[in-house]
Amino acid sequence: MLPDVQCRRPEYPFGLSRVGVTGIKKLVEVKRPSNRPIVLVSTFDVFVDLPCYLKGVSMSRNFEAIDEMIESLTAEPISNVEDLVVKIAEQLIKKHEYASRAEVLMSAEFINKKKTPVTNLNTQEVVKILSEAVVGENERKMFVGVEVTGITVCPCAQELVKARTKMKLIEMGYKEEEIEKILSSIPIASHNQRGRATIKIEVTDDFRVPITKLIDIAKSSMSYESYEILKREDEVFVVEKAHSNPRFVEDCVRYMAAEIVKRLKKAPDDALVIIRQENEESIHQHNVVAERIATFGELRNEINEGKI
Amino acid sequence: MLPDVQCRRPEYPFGLSRVGVTGIKKLVEVKRPSNRPIVLVSTFDVFVDLPCYLKGVSMSRNFEAIDEMIESLTAEPISNVEDLVVKIAEQLIKKHEYASRAEVLMSAEFINKKKTPVTNLNTQEVVKILSEAVVGENERKMFVGVEVTGITVCPCAQELVKARTKMKLIEMGYKEEEIEKILSSIPIASHNQRGRATIKIEVTDDFRVPITKLIDIAKSSMSYESYEILKREDEVFVVEKAHSNPRFVEDCVRYMAAEIVKRLKKAPDDALVIIRQENEESIHQHNVVAERIATFGELRNEINEGKI
Amino acid sequence: MLPDVQCRRPEYPFGLSRVGVTGIKKLVEVKRPSNRPIVLVSTFDVFVDLPCYLKGVSMSRNFEAIDEMIESLTAEPISNVEDLVVKIAEQLIKKHEYASRAEVLMSAEFINKKKTPVTNLNTQEVVKILSEAVVGENERKMFVGVEVTGITVCPCAQELVKARTKMKLIEMGYKEEEIEKILSSIPIASHNQRGRATIKIEVTDDFRVPITKLIDIAKSSMSYESYEILKREDEVFVVEKAHSNPRFVEDCVRYMAAEIVKRLKKAPDDALVIIRQENEESIHQHNVVAERIATFGELRNEINEGKI
Amino acid sequence: MLPDVQCRRPEYPFGLSRVGVTGIKKLVEVKRPSNRPIVLVSTFDVFVDLPCYLKGVSMSRNFEAIDEMIESLTAEPISNVEDLVVKIAEQLIKKHEYASRAEVLMSAEFINKKKTPVTNLNTQEVVKILSEAVVGENERKMFVGVEVTGITVCPCAQELVKARTKMKLIEMGYKEEEIEKILSSIPIASHNQRGRATIKIEVTDDFRVPITKLIDIAKSSMSYESYEILKREDEVFVVEKAHSNPRFVEDCVRYMAAEIVKRLKKAPDDALVIIRQENEESIHQHNVVAERIATFGELRNEINEGKI
Repeated sequence: MLPDVQCRRPEYPFGLSRVGVTGIKKLVEVKRPSNRPIVLVSTFDVFVDLPCYLKGVSMSRNFEAIDEMIESLTAEPISNVEDLVVKIAEQLIKKHEYASRAEVLMSAEFINKKKTPVTNLNTQEVVKILSEAVVGENERKMFVGVEVTGITVCPCAQELVKARTKMKLIEMGYKEEEIEKILSSIPIASHNQRGRATIKIEVTDDFRVPITKLIDIAKSSMSYESYEILKREDEVFVVEKAHSNPRFVEDCVRYMAAEIVKRLKKAPDDALVIIRQENEESIHQHNVVAERIATFGELRNEINEGKI
Repeated sequence: MLPDVQCRRPEYPFGLSRVGVTGIKKLVEVKRPSNRPIVLVSTFDVFVDLPCYLKGVSMSRNFEAIDEMIESLTAEPISNVEDLVVKIAEQLIKKHEYASRAEVLMSAEFINKKKTPVTNLNTQEVVKILSEAVVGENERKMFVGVEVTGITVCPCAQELVKARTKMKLIEMGYKEEEIEKILSSIPIASHNQRGRATIKIEVTDDFRVPITKLIDIAKSSMSYESYEILKREDEVFVVEKAHSNPRFVEDCVRYMAAEIVKRLKKAPDDALVIIRQENEESIHQHNVVAERIATFGELRNEINEGKI
Repeated sequence: MLPDVQCRRPEYPFGLSRVGVTGIKKLVEVKRPSNRPIVLVSTFDVFVDLPCYLKGVSMSRNFEAIDEMIESLTAEPISNVEDLVVKIAEQLIKKHEYASRAEVLMSAEFINKKKTPVTNLNTQEVVKILSEAVVGENERKMFVGVEVTGITVCPCAQELVKARTKMKLIEMGYKEEEIEKILSSIPIASHNQRGRATIKIEVTDDFRVPITKLIDIAKSSMSYESYEILKREDEVFVVEKAHSNPRFVEDCVRYMAAEIVKRLKKAPDDALVIIRQENEESIHQHNVVAERIATFGELRNEINEGKI
Repeated sequence: MLPDVQCRRPEYPFGLSRVGVTGIKKLVEVKRPSNRPIVLVSTFDVFVDLPCYLKGVSMSRNFEAIDEMIESLTAEPISNVEDLVVKIAEQLIKKHEYASRAEVLMSAEFINKKKTPVTNLNTQEVVKILSEAVVGENERKMFVGVEVTGITVCPCAQELVKARTKMKLIEMGYKEEEIEKILSSIPIASHNQRGRATIKIEVTDDFRVPITKLIDIAKSSMSYESYEILKREDEVFVVEKAHSNPRFVEDCVRYMAAEIVKRLKKAPDDALVIIRQENEESIHQHNVVAERIATFGELRNEINEGKI
């Protein structure tokens, strides 16, 4: 019989907050009503804790169980990603009787079909789908999320350019009123960049969020969407739309927060919301970031106090 | 005069948990007693919060201040990385009067000179240095950390191989006692891999940790160190040493915890310790990970209870 | 009517070797006989040249055509990846009448189902699939390739360990002959690591290579395969197998070359072969690499001269 | 005595195009006249060939020599990066008597000090420095190169926006002539993005190129430079400058080609030039790329024929 090294007492019997594996890739098929399933190449990170330091169990042998479990739970098409990750976490807890907490993170690239804005051509975009579960003695949390890319136009630089343009037109002899009329019909230059909007929402058995709704909210938060195909008619449309809707990195986060509160009315007050925007600045080598982490209740309160 | 867009009221006046920049690179020179300063190509991530949603300030303009501050604070050689990041955080709070909390993260590749184990040749290794500061109304936290690579040999596979080898030697007619003698003089095969050990320690004005001490602890936690140069004499030495010291990913974390408690006796009980080991498994495509997050007090208690 | 900036004469009318796009992601479905199609999340890089510097055409507008073409050619399930990329290249040449050469590169992660070696459990592995086409006035080349991971055991360190073990056993009083018998029944320790084997083969309309055959060759070149799931019985089996088959990075490349020549007998002499092995050394921070680029004819000659 | 496995005959005695190591990191100090040396954290990839398949030498043991050589050659401050890499290549050939060709690639992040354009503040930018050497029986080639980031404004979208703006102003009753005057004083909106310009130049013992000159050329090829610090006055300046200098990805490459020919008059006709521009499009998820690979002679001819 083969020996079982992991059952021996460790030399230094400290508890461990997390033991697990990262980067397990699996094909996951998600069912769709009246359509073929969506196929996602998904990456899983899976952890359990190991708090019973007195007992001194080393759990490396159980790494084998993690992959086996993901393998069996992804063998058939699933209904949605959040149920998958929570099921993996629950089975981990059941299987590792000494663990008190399990965490499962999943991410996948979803190829989303869409149409160009003016010429109505078929095109595709990559949206990252996220799902997370934490299951413990007194907790059972699930999250779903998305990450989308789009274009953001800087309002500050646009205002600065506008102000200097005004001065030039005044020098050229134009009057304030006419200048306003001219400038309001011109997309004013600014710097713009690739932005990445991320939303992660805590869901429950009674409160679910379709991923497509999160994709919509994230996309609409930036100055405009990006596209893989753009005919000239589309390109000028996208540039004009984006410049008529300049957004700071903070604006994107605040817009998402407002939309999330408005469009997810059934969310319980204590459900967590994580919103993040990152812009790959064209005028800098560095990126700029804004983030809000709050419960639905906190966001609702801020709206009421702020009288939005 | 140029307009100041950021002072206007935002459309959706939510507070923001974090607004900042990521990926600012600077040359940082760290003073050494009686030696030329160490030069680090360092990357900074810097954030402040924006809680005053009622006032509705958008702070993009202040991104300009962040880089300016890092630029000025890194203009001269510094004493240590933790004082640098806390100074940046403190100045951010001072400058952004509406912010109540600032976070600064720094990481750098440090080229560490060392000798090969047998032939005593000069060689170099890359060690990642980490530093972090969080400064708020009622908090002022600093962290220093390191990430080093080494080799880890799996004890489980080694025991399995040993057990099967015993069976073979028994079949060949050897007696238990003799087999033990033979096997104890042979490095038993297993799978081994590149490991990455990470330590992050909370420090205070009164309790500092030299980075070299953390490098030592992290390196000693794995089965053996890795080297860029290895003569044949060194190579066999490293392989034998590593196989005589097999370590699970959990063992590495527990070993670091024990060494940290033993070698950092002056650490206050409430100072935080973050320890992590990640192994790039040679027999899998995925990695395995173990992690412990605890205060010095908690770790000390576990030792006392465990009677190590 | 919208202006057409790209038709104007450039200020500096140099020709361009390559103009194109990188990182276009598409879902590609590959047909299988009597089975559902394989779904690949594929990334495309597409280039044409722009040699007619005198005419001075700038082709940015035509970026729109590239994505449109990939979109339309991947709308239906395809027969194989090499026909897809060559079709994209051919259409690019047709559409860009001033271009004389088009290059298309595609890569995708293929989730390959397999069984564990002893316990026969279902598991999956990620294999990278590559495909390339170059189409020009007098050339029309297609390539298919794969990249797989596995474990490699160093023969050098193993011999060194064996030699030192012999010396110890001699000191213990064993005789040469008995030592040989003992050592031949024990997996001798060495360092081992994650390896990555890559093969790229030029194919033609008459000479095709099934991707599964390339996966087989690449996997068999290393000391042994890696698996996501490994029960204890599997783990010891993999470690013993790998240690009984030590391979230098050069050995892996040479083994692949030999297998390619042996198993692809119909390949024309002028078809190109690119073979590469990269090992993520466990005893070093750096990787080691070996590579061979040759025609089938050259490889066949070397075999004949070498009298393998 | 330890055995020497690498001298044995390989099972499949194929030659190898490249055997070597990748990712060796070293501190390299570059001398400067009347100033402290520049410190570069540099990464080296080093290869030799192994053509003598009949002799069947396996060279893994010699990996040890590679690092030792780099270690010794970087122990003292060097004069320039191209002499360093060629010296490494030459010593490799000398040391590995069976190798007929050695390749050395080096890259490093150089922190370049500069001033903001209007407010004249100190700031830093990261420039990637490249160096390469190939030394063989009948060849001895050296390359130096740089990679810089900047902002690129799309001329096509700008013209489209301009055309539509004209139409609107015509509808508002303005005359052609007046419209031209108005539009010529306004930075017209477009999409803009982070661009990356790369130049690599073949140098010889008699023809050297200071890296600062290549940095200048690469930076000037894009619509404008990017900066880490930008005060409001600087920001509007950068945006206006960039929009007054729109550049396609092809324009950037052609501009660099023209400047290289103009500013490097002493370059021999057969010296190779590699120029590349990559733009991280803000309106797309994909990047666009243009590239020119040619000799100085070819570029000079194209200029003469094109009568630039």
